[in-house]
Amino acid sequence: MKYSKLFGKTIKETPKDVTLVSHKLLYRAGFIRESTAGRYYLLPLGLRVQHKIQQIVKEEMDKSGAQEMIAPILHPKSLWEETNRTSSVGFELMSIKDRNEFEFVLGGTAEEMLVDLVRKFQISYKDLPFNLYQFSVKFRDEIRARGGLLRLREFVMKDAYSFHASEEDFKKEYQNMMDTYTKIFQRLSLKTEIVESDNGYIGGEYCHEFIVESMVGESRYLTDEDGYSAHEDVAKFLVESLAGSDEEMKPMEDVLGKGIIGVEELAKFLKIPVEKTTKTILFETDKGEVVAAAVRGGFDINEVKLMHIVKCNRLKLASAETVKKVTGADVGYAGVLNLPKDVKVYFDETCANRKNFEMGANRTDYHTINVNFGRDIPEEPKEFYDFKLAKMGYLSSNGKRLKAKKGIEVGNIFQLGFHYSSKMKGASFRDADGSEKPYYMGCYGIGLARTLAAVVEVYNDEKGITWPDNIAPFKVHIVGLDMEDEKVQKEAEKIYKLLLAEGIETLLDDRQNLSAGNKFADADLIGIPYRVVISKKTSDKLEVKKRSEKETRFLSLEELFKYISP
Amino acid sequence: MKYSKLFGKTIKETPKDVTLVSHKLLYRAGFIRESTAGRYYLLPLGLRVQHKIQQIVKEEMDKSGAQEMIAPILHPKSLWEETNRTSSVGFELMSIKDRNEFEFVLGGTAEEMLVDLVRKFQISYKDLPFNLYQFSVKFRDEIRARGGLLRLREFVMKDAYSFHASEEDFKKEYQNMMDTYTKIFQRLSLKTEIVESDNGYIGGEYCHEFIVESMVGESRYLTDEDGYSAHEDVAKFLVESLAGSDEEMKPMEDVLGKGIIGVEELAKFLKIPVEKTTKTILFETDKGEVVAAAVRGGFDINEVKLMHIVKCNRLKLASAETVKKVTGADVGYAGVLNLPKDVKVYFDETCANRKNFEMGANRTDYHTINVNFGRDIPEEPKEFYDFKLAKMGYLSSNGKRLKAKKGIEVGNIFQLGFHYSSKMKGASFRDADGSEKPYYMGCYGIGLARTLAAVVEVYNDEKGITWPDNIAPFKVHIVGLDMEDEKVQKEAEKIYKLLLAEGIETLLDDRQNLSAGNKFADADLIGIPYRVVISKKTSDKLEVKKRSEKETRFLSLEELFKYISP
Repeated sequence: MKYSKLFGKTIKETPKDVTLVSHKLLYRAGFIRESTAGRYYLLPLGLRVQHKIQQIVKEEMDKSGAQEMIAPILHPKSLWEETNRTSSVGFELMSIKDRNEFEFVLGGTAEEMLVDLVRKFQISYKDLPFNLYQFSVKFRDEIRARGGLLRLREFVMKDAYSFHASEEDFKKEYQNMMDTYTKIFQRLSLKTEIVESDNGYIGGEYCHEFIVESMVGESRYLTDEDGYSAHEDVAKFLVESLAGSDEEMKPMEDVLGKGIIGVEELAKFLKIPVEKTTKTILFETDKGEVVAAAVRGGFDINEVKLMHIVKCNRLKLASAETVKKVTGADVGYAGVLNLPKDVKVYFDETCANRKNFEMGANRTDYHTINVNFGRDIPEEPKEFYDFKLAKMGYLSSNGKRLKAKKGIEVGNIFQLGFHYSSKMKGASFRDADGSEKPYYMGCYGIGLARTLAAVVEVYNDEKGITWPDNIAPFKVHIVGLDMEDEKVQKEAEKIYKLLLAEGIETLLDDRQNLSAGNKFADADLIGIPYRVVISKKTSDKLEVKKRSEKETRFLSLEELFKYISP
Repeated sequence: MKYSKLFGKTIKETPKDVTLVSHKLLYRAGFIRESTAGRYYLLPLGLRVQHKIQQIVKEEMDKSGAQEMIAPILHPKSLWEETNRTSSVGFELMSIKDRNEFEFVLGGTAEEMLVDLVRKFQISYKDLPFNLYQFSVKFRDEIRARGGLLRLREFVMKDAYSFHASEEDFKKEYQNMMDTYTKIFQRLSLKTEIVESDNGYIGGEYCHEFIVESMVGESRYLTDEDGYSAHEDVAKFLVESLAGSDEEMKPMEDVLGKGIIGVEELAKFLKIPVEKTTKTILFETDKGEVVAAAVRGGFDINEVKLMHIVKCNRLKLASAETVKKVTGADVGYAGVLNLPKDVKVYFDETCANRKNFEMGANRTDYHTINVNFGRDIPEEPKEFYDFKLAKMGYLSSNGKRLKAKKGIEVGNIFQLGFHYSSKMKGASFRDADGSEKPYYMGCYGIGLARTLAAVVEVYNDEKGITWPDNIAPFKVHIVGLDMEDEKVQKEAEKIYKLLLAEGIETLLDDRQNLSAGNKFADADLIGIPYRVVISKKTSDKLEVKKRSEKETRFLSLEELFKYISP
């Protein structure tokens, strides 16, 4: 490709509002342009990189035994209703009617579509297992798109769906996919951590994210030195258990404590240890219910964990009006005493084994002390839950200190179990004994554009992008200087054609009347791995520089071929 | 690939309502499944073929100098409003709002998106020309989808858009694309004709379709032996001019002629030649206007030609109520005399040079005879038009008889001129003299799935599909018989691996307990070019048969490699 002909040239200015490095570099180097927020054009350079990433994903998926196919992008809405997902993902789902009033959703993920396909066949145990994957455009109606390719509203995702006769068989494929993803990200030069995570609206019981550690990532997770790694949404940790208490129960009383913020201050004020304080928070669910959740002072509530316990699709902090209506008090004084009967109460396990503890009085400015289960809260709760938020410094179940990290989620794998096959009629196979059984499923995703952005977040320096060899848009960038000189032009053209003849993808900067400084800056910005300079000074040795190194070499053409071969 | 593992096996039954051969065969052979009408899953076999077609299109487009990129599927509706296309394609266009009430359309073609991209750059005459193409999913909200892949509501299209400094430069690219398409369809083993056609809602002044002749095609076109080839919508033809008339004008009168159907009968009844009769038809436009169009008896009206003359987006026959309201008469007696002033009248050029002609009387059961321009129709029309429908047997402008053909449109190329750049603000380049000028454009499309279906319509026999070598899903189909026998299994596996090692795409039918007849029938149905049988009888020579031939050969492995190499 000649640079003079390339659509999508470099640009010096960074637009306002561009904060992410990957966004800035991909924009300035001419890889992408925004259409509307979260929807991008991939220009020729950008698409070349995405194709290479796609090819690597395809090769490894094929090696894993998965089979590529493709489903329509418009999914009949009725399928999403079968699994009740229109309500759980309603907020991210766009729906549309055709001229016949037939309703579709724009696919964000394709579990129902694949199950609907598979159930068109009469599947027997002999046909199982299989894993079907596709590269297709996905849509997410995100509240906010981030700049660049990190969080898009429209993007190509490799999504795969596996079907099994048993959980045991599924587990082999889950491991197979874990290994496949590990290879994929290795080939993409991305160091990933495999992190236990929440399944969001996908369903199923467990899943893992592949995360590239990055300060600009949106995934927060915790790890320990023994290999524990879990997303903040699901991370577990050890809590020092309270000494079993043989205290006498003291008389419960309300204490005036206006405007005391924070458990430390409250404990000091009440002259009790922090672990005797209780934080009670009211939430409203997507069904309009109000629930109260209580953790011991010193801990915070993890809303994702709580959501699963409450079994709702969304939770939000109750509004001040709701708090007032339910507790009779202003925000800040909620407890579980005397709540209306329809407010369900959940205790975190940190609340157990306590006597004479504190709690908001449901009375503005007041705290109740010496509260006891059994006596003041009619019964001991039947169940204590785990909805504590994990934090840096807490102890993992290995007894090691947790480290907090941030990263970019580039892939994920999900156990789905019978989540879909139990909800969708006819989603079954005929077993050896002739009986019809639901299949056991898993699903597996990789977002191509986000992966591309993650590579740029990792591979860059102050001058531009430093593409890994195997996904760079071109391998060699010939920078022609003095291109007004006919001899130089011919020489550059000659080397260019020799490289192409060897099957080496080459970009030739053939622009005339542009300074060497400008051309070098462009080459550094675009980030092609090998730069070859051709100018009036060029003799039989070519001036070659690797983008990621400082050193310049002088190589014959033969030596150049050797140098750049993998 | 082992057939036992392949997702999407053959099936014996053809579903009801399946009439097209390509639909039947692709369905039965396990290449496709329908999701909803006009939206299909491509199963692994089907996607393999589409990928090969796509690769050929890509190679030729790249060779032509075009550059691949990709635009979002959701287009801001405001762009389509800029060019006023929401009204012209409103009926095929689906639109959708996101959670922020931002309105999008699902792209059916991407002229506005590409212009919107290009105008983000400061394009100078040095950057021109360029041609950008993409493979992306397109949506058409068709009233009726046909079965199979011939007319889809969702499909992958290669669409390309070229930008030029002048018409002259564009014309070179138009020829370049014509040549590129010719090569593409040659490589796909499709014999195409290049047919002048109507540009529909794309805009511009001329365009050509690449059509594969087929009885199941929906494109009707006319050709002559001198190479004239035009879609029915635009085809022109010679009309024997009427002898210049020196007749005296006779007195005009209404004649009772109840229930006389057809011009022949009418001419006989009135004792006048057919060319003195007139067919007047009333239409309603999408703007709610009523227009009258008149052709000489013996000809029919081409609504597409008429639509361009009337300058509206849609035309439909006026309803009986409208006819009654406008003419005062029942359907069948319309003429242009005494029509309300707001009904615009169009005469086809066949109406010129006549005296004392007949016309519907706008009075139920009556025909007016001896009508004359100037006297009865106040003025001679300022302009006569050409909206006659061409038919088989008419004379082309070469003076040759026209032949009528039907075919499948697999590609099209459009001159767009300034149609988009004049309507979209900022769609311009800086010329050498510093002035801003709109660019001259063209666009070029190929639908992949329809092309795939066209191949199957051409390449099939009573047993199944007969894929051309270079786009077959696999090159070799090993049919293992007696696969219950361990020795045969091992032999089949060995040959399979040797073929794979040579890079030959191979499908191994490894199913056990299935008759030879069933396996051969499946192989014939799927249509892979070379069949190799391995059974107990196999010695050092392999039984090889080409799908398209009857003869069986016995070849050593070496000979097989040679035989199947291109």
